[in-house]
Amino acid sequence: MDTKYMKRALELSKKGKGYVNPNPLVGAVIVKNNKIIGEGYHHIYGGDHAEIDAFKNSIEDVNGATMYVTLEPCSHYGKTPPCAKTIVEKGIKKVVIALKDPNPLVSGRGIKILQDNSIEIVTGILEDECKKLNEIFLKYITSKLPFCIMKTAMTLDGKIASCTGDSKWITNEASRNYVHNLRNTVSGIMVGIGTILADNPFLTTRLNNGTDAERIIVDSTLRIPLDSNVLNLNSKANTIIATTEKANSKKLKTLEDMGACVIITPLKEGKVDLNYLIKTLGEFKIDSILLEGGSYLNYTALKENIIDKVYSFISPKFIGGNEAKTPIGGEGISFMKDAVRLKNINIHNFAEDILIEGYIEKNH
Amino acid sequence: MDTKYMKRALELSKKGKGYVNPNPLVGAVIVKNNKIIGEGYHHIYGGDHAEIDAFKNSIEDVNGATMYVTLEPCSHYGKTPPCAKTIVEKGIKKVVIALKDPNPLVSGRGIKILQDNSIEIVTGILEDECKKLNEIFLKYITSKLPFCIMKTAMTLDGKIASCTGDSKWITNEASRNYVHNLRNTVSGIMVGIGTILADNPFLTTRLNNGTDAERIIVDSTLRIPLDSNVLNLNSKANTIIATTEKANSKKLKTLEDMGACVIITPLKEGKVDLNYLIKTLGEFKIDSILLEGGSYLNYTALKENIIDKVYSFISPKFIGGNEAKTPIGGEGISFMKDAVRLKNINIHNFAEDILIEGYIEKNH
Repeated sequence: MDTKYMKRALELSKKGKGYVNPNPLVGAVIVKNNKIIGEGYHHIYGGDHAEIDAFKNSIEDVNGATMYVTLEPCSHYGKTPPCAKTIVEKGIKKVVIALKDPNPLVSGRGIKILQDNSIEIVTGILEDECKKLNEIFLKYITSKLPFCIMKTAMTLDGKIASCTGDSKWITNEASRNYVHNLRNTVSGIMVGIGTILADNPFLTTRLNNGTDAERIIVDSTLRIPLDSNVLNLNSKANTIIATTEKANSKKLKTLEDMGACVIITPLKEGKVDLNYLIKTLGEFKIDSILLEGGSYLNYTALKENIIDKVYSFISPKFIGGNEAKTPIGGEGISFMKDAVRLKNINIHNFAEDILIEGYIEKNH
Repeated sequence: MDTKYMKRALELSKKGKGYVNPNPLVGAVIVKNNKIIGEGYHHIYGGDHAEIDAFKNSIEDVNGATMYVTLEPCSHYGKTPPCAKTIVEKGIKKVVIALKDPNPLVSGRGIKILQDNSIEIVTGILEDECKKLNEIFLKYITSKLPFCIMKTAMTLDGKIASCTGDSKWITNEASRNYVHNLRNTVSGIMVGIGTILADNPFLTTRLNNGTDAERIIVDSTLRIPLDSNVLNLNSKANTIIATTEKANSKKLKTLEDMGACVIITPLKEGKVDLNYLIKTLGEFKIDSILLEGGSYLNYTALKENIIDKVYSFISPKFIGGNEAKTPIGGEGISFMKDAVRLKNINIHNFAEDILIEGYIEKNH
């Protein structure tokens, strides 16, 4: 029974994807006499918490009911009053929780308020599912660093473009649509200047009701052309350019005048220091980054150990070519035994395309 | 009912894998009063056909029984007497057949003999499964050309070796074992001279009771070192070297004296003509080739359109490197729209490794 209602609460929580960052996705269900009498979720950053949303949507008196909520109710006055207090006031008898609040400042406090008011507590129901759904929030709240996802797309012979640089298209429409869904769930999209020069992308989220992520361009010497699409968009999201002291200060000023946000990082091997960059982006409340880099930026990101998760699209076709680019370039790792491994792998299909999803093993 | 017993016959037929080439895999089941009273399969090239094996293994009188057989019983005197005649003599009442004989010389004749003797015939039961199981036989019997399977193994960033050439190992032990199973089902294994020089492989089948395939080395100018493992093996299979008029005739003679079989093909763009080569190999009764080439040979084979099927192993790890080799090299195809596509794709897992199996779309 607990599992059934918690599943529903998790489903509800997903509706907030793309709108709540850097908050977690939270869903809540109120049950009385084996009947759902209220459902809610956290719709948008700054809006009602899931518990409050569920109370507002209740169709019966909630007094004596059980609440299923995916995250421990909050105990502090933030943008909204503490949910734990409201739950007590409403006369809820039992609260079932998937995941305790991972925020070290408040973890356990919400539960304590409930227990002090004789409310029965069950925790850990569908905890793993909830953790996976909130992997962005969990990394960000504990480290203040964005959760970095590397997305690659290649042919079955490992190419991200043909020998002539043609990359339209490697993957099919279903895969490309899924990438727009990914963009909709993150706060930032990162590419290197090479990708800007080669493809002049928009880096927007082409979905109905989609949210554009902040565009982050890694450009150590500010080679970005002023007429680039990312500098001339109608988008609520910012274009952030990460550069170094090697940049021309006049061009930097021009870019800022055009509305771009420029971050100057220390030099790391003569280029942008990616670890410094993501720390700064975390301070800007960017909780997640989709890295859609070319082979050089992907290699640097891998070497600098900033990647948490990988989405690798593979299209079952061959293009050949010694000179055609691959997803990860750079100097390369010398020996197979030192390769960077993925764990917790899942495979999905988009028509004939294959998506391999996994997490970087952080032991190097 | 028909499906149940035919499934069993197909299962039995698989026991001949690796031993019957260039014959088909065939299994037979004899059923009387809803009970299996005899089972058989084609064990080895030149040995009893499945029907005869089933008769020999029968535990009851087969008179009046039904026979399930995966391929139309033969009608001709070859290495064994015609099975259709034996079936008539044994008093079988009904014969259920998965696949009619695709050999244009005899197709339908076995069925006609049975029908002329008032035996009831059902055909097409599990025909697709039988076709897939006998894809090697079906191509070879109709074209006299070997069925060519390209096997590749790469990292998730498309590399078949690191930038230093290290390739031990890309895939895990389970994947590598499966490759030995593949080797056991084909008549020939083909590699380029580059692979011989880089890895000095044995190209044997390391399995209990495995059969070595003929080793085919594509070596346009006979660069093969005389101390190569493939030239100094204790193996029942031959080492075949495909070369051209560019080869040194003294070295050619030495190789033949060492027991190698040398095929001289016409020049195609200055190299071995792969289409001429596979035609010759077909004449040598090689019905199937596993291409385990490096990037250059794979590209040439793809361009020359000799590949039928692909096994692409992917290991979920990253090695990086602009200079690291990919499964298919060469000049490459210029535009994505002209890429060579795979169809009828299946995905298998070997622990964390992924195997993508598919067939080349032959529309180019």
